[in-house]
Amino acid sequence: MAIGYPNGKKRKVQTKDSVPVKNKMTNYGKRGMSLEEDLNETNAFYLAHERAVIHKKPTPVQIVRVDYPKRSNATIKEAYFKQPSTTDYNGVYRGKYLDFEAKETKNKTSFPLSNFHPHQMEHMKQILKQDGFAFVITSFSSLGVVYLTRFDRFLPFWERMESGGRKSITLEELQAHSKQIPYGLNPRLDYLSIIDTFF
Amino acid sequence: MAIGYPNGKKRKVQTKDSVPVKNKMTNYGKRGMSLEEDLNETNAFYLAHERAVIHKKPTPVQIVRVDYPKRSNATIKEAYFKQPSTTDYNGVYRGKYLDFEAKETKNKTSFPLSNFHPHQMEHMKQILKQDGFAFVITSFSSLGVVYLTRFDRFLPFWERMESGGRKSITLEELQAHSKQIPYGLNPRLDYLSIIDTFF
Repeated sequence: MAIGYPNGKKRKVQTKDSVPVKNKMTNYGKRGMSLEEDLNETNAFYLAHERAVIHKKPTPVQIVRVDYPKRSNATIKEAYFKQPSTTDYNGVYRGKYLDFEAKETKNKTSFPLSNFHPHQMEHMKQILKQDGFAFVITSFSSLGVVYLTRFDRFLPFWERMESGGRKSITLEELQAHSKQIPYGLNPRLDYLSIIDTFF
Repeated sequence: MAIGYPNGKKRKVQTKDSVPVKNKMTNYGKRGMSLEEDLNETNAFYLAHERAVIHKKPTPVQIVRVDYPKRSNATIKEAYFKQPSTTDYNGVYRGKYLDFEAKETKNKTSFPLSNFHPHQMEHMKQILKQDGFAFVITSFSSLGVVYLTRFDRFLPFWERMESGGRKSITLEELQAHSKQIPYGLNPRLDYLSIIDTFF
């Protein structure tokens, strides 16, 4: 992965092997960036228009060392990324609890299941038991298409992998078990319009 | 605030003005520690017994600099605490969306409203509009009592402060508008039993 020279400009690197994070959001790594932005803007739109209250959870970080040069100005000096124990997004829409994970691939013919973690699957199973609505959003960034798959339709593909089957879902399979979320201007990815078709 | 010599033992301090974080959880600062532990254990109990799926959100952190000594082992070298835009806890209980904030005081006669932030109040207002159930848990650690207050009963005290009134809720007021959550062994703070009385 090439880091440091976007647009031909030399980026200021603070120390050897040290990468300044430009964006306020969690843009370390490359996965999920533009999908995450689209969803953040969509959720902000929903919030502003009182259509739903859905937030991305903060990235879980294990904090090891904090400096307090001044009482009011704590600086975290050592911390590590932790694996999330839940999905990234949840919230409430017309009394309904929504919970989902969103992932992106550059593949054009299948979606790798390695994008997801076993504990996220366990989490979404628990959500279903509590009568919440769990789903998965998958983006094929090279194709410009985004799908919403109810978790109960997604889970069988995960279980197929667990029992030794293929480690991805083919595009055709996803199409057969999902609904496409059309790109729009405002909101950018109106996934609630898809949710509405389920109830 | 005294740091460094609990139980008469000298704690290892890594650098000047630098405080190692002992606990995996967010125990920088002193606010909310034991209440947070009680709630985390309670939520783990609910999860294990499939009574509800409720998680504390990770502490939001703005990451400024990440070191990648090895590709697989990213270390955050500079980050700052961000103010959360929501409450700390949410989840689903029998199809119902729950959302709450939990705070602790050492005071014995009133609960300071400075423990809460305006954006948390705005967030809980939005939750009510979406037919979610929002509430506040307040712990008087010196008294050993914990209250659950529905947000619609809590909000008037916040609004009283905003219109120039007192900056705290008296213990008597809280008692009149809340239900006490009894301490137990398992779960430690069975707040769902209080939620049940509301439906």
